Amino acid sequence: KRAREYGIVVGVLPTGKHNAITDVAGVRVGHTTLVREDSVRTGVTAILPHEGNVFQEKVPAAVYVGNGFGKLAGSTQVVELGNLETPVILTNTLSVGTALNAVVGYELQQPDNEEVQSVNAVVGETNDGYLNDIRGRHVTEADVVQAIQQAKGGAVDEGNVGAGTGTVCFGFKGGIGTSSRQLPGSLGGYTVGVLVQTNFGGVLQVNGAPVGQELGQYYFSQKIKDSADGSCMIVVATDAPVDARNLERMAKRAMMGLAKTGGIASNGSGDYVIAFSAHPELRIPYTSPGKTQANNTLRNDDMSPLFMAVIEATEEAIINSLFKAETMTGKEQRTVEALPLAKVLKILKKHNAITD
Amino acid sequence: KRAREYGIVVGVLPTGKHNAITDVAGVRVGHTTLVREDSVRTGVTAILPHEGNVFQEKVPAAVYVGNGFGKLAGSTQVVELGNLETPVILTNTLSVGTALNAVVGYELQQPDNEEVQSVNAVVGETNDGYLNDIRGRHVTEADVVQAIQQAKGGAVDEGNVGAGTGTVCFGFKGGIGTSSRQLPGSLGGYTVGVLVQTNFGGVLQVNGAPVGQELGQYYFSQKIKDSADGSCMIVVATDAPVDARNLERMAKRAMMGLAKTGGIASNGSGDYVIAFSAHPELRIPYTSPGKTQANNTLRNDDMSPLFMAVIEATEEAIINSLFKAETMTGKEQRTVEALPLAKVLKILKKHNAITD
Amino acid sequence: KRAREYGIVVGVLPTGKHNAITDVAGVRVGHTTLVREDSVRTGVTAILPHEGNVFQEKVPAAVYVGNGFGKLAGSTQVVELGNLETPVILTNTLSVGTALNAVVGYELQQPDNEEVQSVNAVVGETNDGYLNDIRGRHVTEADVVQAIQQAKGGAVDEGNVGAGTGTVCFGFKGGIGTSSRQLPGSLGGYTVGVLVQTNFGGVLQVNGAPVGQELGQYYFSQKIKDSADGSCMIVVATDAPVDARNLERMAKRAMMGLAKTGGIASNGSGDYVIAFSAHPELRIPYTSPGKTQANNTLRNDDMSPLFMAVIEATEEAIINSLFKAETMTGKEQRTVEALPLAKVLKILKKHNAITD
Amino acid sequence: KRAREYGIVVGVLPTGKHNAITDVAGVRVGHTTLVREDSVRTGVTAILPHEGNVFQEKVPAAVYVGNGFGKLAGSTQVVELGNLETPVILTNTLSVGTALNAVVGYELQQPDNEEVQSVNAVVGETNDGYLNDIRGRHVTEADVVQAIQQAKGGAVDEGNVGAGTGTVCFGFKGGIGTSSRQLPGSLGGYTVGVLVQTNFGGVLQVNGAPVGQELGQYYFSQKIKDSADGSCMIVVATDAPVDARNLERMAKRAMMGLAKTGGIASNGSGDYVIAFSAHPELRIPYTSPGKTQANNTLRNDDMSPLFMAVIEATEEAIINSLFKAETMTGKEQRTVEALPLAKVLKILKKHNAITD
Repeated sequence: KRAREYGIVVGVLPTGKHNAITDVAGVRVGHTTLVREDSVRTGVTAILPHEGNVFQEKVPAAVYVGNGFGKLAGSTQVVELGNLETPVILTNTLSVGTALNAVVGYELQQPDNEEVQSVNAVVGETNDGYLNDIRGRHVTEADVVQAIQQAKGGAVDEGNVGAGTGTVCFGFKGGIGTSSRQLPGSLGGYTVGVLVQTNFGGVLQVNGAPVGQELGQYYFSQKIKDSADGSCMIVVATDAPVDARNLERMAKRAMMGLAKTGGIASNGSGDYVIAFSAHPELRIPYTSPGKTQANNTLRNDDMSPLFMAVIEATEEAIINSLFKAETMTGKEQRTVEALPLAKVLKILKKHNAITD
Repeated sequence: KRAREYGIVVGVLPTGKHNAITDVAGVRVGHTTLVREDSVRTGVTAILPHEGNVFQEKVPAAVYVGNGFGKLAGSTQVVELGNLETPVILTNTLSVGTALNAVVGYELQQPDNEEVQSVNAVVGETNDGYLNDIRGRHVTEADVVQAIQQAKGGAVDEGNVGAGTGTVCFGFKGGIGTSSRQLPGSLGGYTVGVLVQTNFGGVLQVNGAPVGQELGQYYFSQKIKDSADGSCMIVVATDAPVDARNLERMAKRAMMGLAKTGGIASNGSGDYVIAFSAHPELRIPYTSPGKTQANNTLRNDDMSPLFMAVIEATEEAIINSLFKAETMTGKEQRTVEALPLAKVLKILKKHNAITD
Repeated sequence: KRAREYGIVVGVLPTGKHNAITDVAGVRVGHTTLVREDSVRTGVTAILPHEGNVFQEKVPAAVYVGNGFGKLAGSTQVVELGNLETPVILTNTLSVGTALNAVVGYELQQPDNEEVQSVNAVVGETNDGYLNDIRGRHVTEADVVQAIQQAKGGAVDEGNVGAGTGTVCFGFKGGIGTSSRQLPGSLGGYTVGVLVQTNFGGVLQVNGAPVGQELGQYYFSQKIKDSADGSCMIVVATDAPVDARNLERMAKRAMMGLAKTGGIASNGSGDYVIAFSAHPELRIPYTSPGKTQANNTLRNDDMSPLFMAVIEATEEAIINSLFKAETMTGKEQRTVEALPLAKVLKILKKHNAITD
Repeated sequence: KRAREYGIVVGVLPTGKHNAITDVAGVRVGHTTLVREDSVRTGVTAILPHEGNVFQEKVPAAVYVGNGFGKLAGSTQVVELGNLETPVILTNTLSVGTALNAVVGYELQQPDNEEVQSVNAVVGETNDGYLNDIRGRHVTEADVVQAIQQAKGGAVDEGNVGAGTGTVCFGFKGGIGTSSRQLPGSLGGYTVGVLVQTNFGGVLQVNGAPVGQELGQYYFSQKIKDSADGSCMIVVATDAPVDARNLERMAKRAMMGLAKTGGIASNGSGDYVIAFSAHPELRIPYTSPGKTQANNTLRNDDMSPLFMAVIEATEEAIINSLFKAETMTGKEQRTVEALPLAKVLKILKKHNAITD
């Protein structure tokens, strides 16, 4: 079950319908999960910003680098042009090249893209090499395309799926997590959705309760598994009409949500945030007869509620990734235990961090 | 009393001797507090990186902009050159020019600086205009110089002092706060100290406990005083031998500590972090006969414990600023209440966020 | 006479009417020139983005740091919020504080600003300490306000005026220079104007001709006066409807124009570019009843002509600053010669860099 | 012949022995050139920072984004950690994924890298789709590995080779170019080498002479071939002991050299600079017993001569790429002419931009 189903209420804002990034209209998520033999424990997650041809109808976007020990591809063009022109792909560290090739191939073949000669694929990763035979590079281009093609709206699978199949978080089994927030109508009624691939460390806090310390498993405690290249990929979507500059500001706040789970953005962590607006009227056409584009976007003064929504949704998405992940055995018979929920719920009760 | 005196233990690392930025050897702090008539509620806080002539012996330094709705002066030169050549001054928003002039004048008059024609003063601010007659610009150059000249080591005054005299934080009286962390000898034994000037909002959490919600006073709750230009200035000092690039990484983590108190870096908040290393062997002489300088600095791989120390010390420094601030009445007979400690301690007990 | 009056045609685009930043409708420039006694050789230049209350009607803006050895105040807020809310002030290095105070005071006193408690003054500087008694800090707040109040459109005074009174460029007398470009109607017909305060070094090229080398006066030639804190402030204005992100891209190109004059952005040079759009429909009101603002801005795809206009206008503005500056004697009886125009024109002829 | 062989002397500093990036001791360059059938006109260029295992012995490095309409992979980790751990690979836009995969595979197989699970490959590109069947993605992983393995010191092939095989520059055939500068002994005697992959536009200037205008072929002239995704990749190497922060400053100056050739960093140009120090004592070991590393690096104050060297070498490298490129016919029987050298030399004579 997800955190909220246990009565864990993170923050003060209500969630969207599915408490998922897909609550942002048009956003879809697809997973390819690879669990084979003793040591293949990896996968691909694709996040599609809308249902059309994203290359032809780009979305305003931004990237924030929380800690750049990672291989995110495509970031500089997003920053320069303020837009995203492909699905966002998450996978493992050594499969970024394959995912790039897959997205490029996919885009070249889309209807209307017959003349396209340049594609800026955005591919993020975390390192699942503790459980996964990462050097074997088992992700194929077909796996990536499948994640794109199977993407759908509605509830999103979490835990040991897709790019989260083999990840480790706070010494427990991590994975994919998601959450959303909806602003009150008086603040615009906008939705913010977040999806995370969790593979990082620190001192786990769940809704304020010091779970890592109480379990005796945290950074410095000598019990945590030290992943040389932990990371957290965070994708933020909104239907609010936000331009690229303010999307970057939203992206920065995601790291504040990560902080509230006890993450420390350690040296070896590749923590990146990709934020985009799926607002239909902000689409940026690949070609246009006019020189200018009219956009009706939020003023700076009205961004704060969205910042808060990003922080809350990121925190809860990370917690969901832990709650939904299951114990996994992988490479070299290593086992990473799921978060011990019974104990955790007890700790949360002790700290009054859970409602009955 | 400070938070820790009540049994509130933030994080897992031990503090330094004074639990203050001054635990970093050589660092000194001075305050000028201006409380006059009905509406002068402001001041100046100076942080001196070492006991010598800082212009002649600069320190490695970095600046991170958490949210740039603020008037921090001097940041681009610190970023470009990787060093700090003056004390760091904190004051109110409309007194930055006066503080710049004061620091420039002070530096021009220091022995050995007779030929100096260029001074990069670093001056930060928050907006204390809710309680203070900020438009009256009551801070004088003499007030600034006094804060520098009276700077001292040891315990640091907190709460309604210096640049924190008139600030408001989470709807309660904010102010100056400080804290420190000391790494275990096996991790180098380094000290990290943080000093904050708190004037921002969000949903207050104290050591994980949802104090703002329980008190019914938080962003969105309609009860919080809306300060158009809240802000949080954060100064991070360390005696670890850290170069400018890794100091920037430390500075970024301070915003993660702020996040843990419930801050959201709202649109109107000018949240800046200035980090420097006071390690004696990293001083950068103004002039030097040689072309090169030998520095023995920490490897990237050994930065993570310092990141964690920054996060913990920032969180606790903010909490200290609230615990030590007292109810204040100022401009237009407005009153900002201190954090109601009795209630807060009760909430902390309820959430097991306090030791007995 | 200005460079173009001698038949020097920089680039391929035509200039605006006055070949000045004031060709951008609404932009005005004012100078206060201080030449007193033996050693006061300094001043103030104010650039006003439009004729209204800039605080109440902010303009989209960006800052690019070419080389950050400088004291530019106000940059982080411009970057964060994407707007400029005051005139841009240029002065000498040690008078930034005074100029900040003056702008703050000026803004607080403007009609409609009676309740304003936060002002982000943008003040740039170069170091005129070779000719000017910079340590004497002779610029007053009144001097700054005067520059603002006397600002006007039309032809702009260049050379030894305002903030360029005491500057040195390529070892010759520098100063204020300006130029503009107008795009053909098919590319939108937009105007780009640039104003510079030149105080930097390198190997002077005029319209491609190696003037510095031919005169035997250039960096490395041992003849150039070594100014420890040279700098070049560059202000770029346009009437094109450009948002803050694309204004930053325009700002970056100004450094490319500087490069074409032989500037090298040396370590000690504080090279900054401030760019803004004066397009009337892009004004950002201080307060607004609505949450969103509709802007009709240029697409990325249509920015390149503006980039080229910035490069050309910056190059020519720098050359104009040299052509219009006159030999000056100042502090300690030091004399900086004007560019020896007769010789220079001969060199330009030799290199076919001038039309008859 | 290269530009200098015609008597074109760019700048005031002497070149290194080969006037190539390989003048920096240890730096090697390898090309794989793919010219097949009617429409395969592409390739790979590899730049190796030293002769050892670069992953085990990383080099200080920086990336500067001149204009980010490009797909450079690996930049964020270089920026965060300040180092480069693989060869730099240049290729075409749609082959970045393949090159990433190739470098990852290559590194995993190097002796001593048996346990490595994370590789940050740095791969840059320009778009050669005017002459090359770029959608066919003809570059293979073997092509990339071959470029690495065949890398060598000494003279570097230029023009239509490697990643420059199919590129177009200023409407003429572009390609690979290189140049170097050596500082006088009194300034340290350091060498700076630059290699470029030229595929961009503007108004060509050769050593200050307005070649593009005189030939009637330049941006706005309607004659230039409009490449939707032009770009210029620039690699800067030095043997000077420069840390990552100052390498970034060097990288920024490369765009100033590009400006001097008439480049404008147009919207569609992906202009990136990767700078590294090959100084043997600055190597950063992958693993180390100690927490700190002692580095003896250049002071800020001594960087300016290196900045100038970067500008000069970049300008000349671009000119070399044009001088050495030859007319090429490719995709759809399109032909791009080489720079018409006879005419160009005549223009240079007319402008006295060439010595006899």
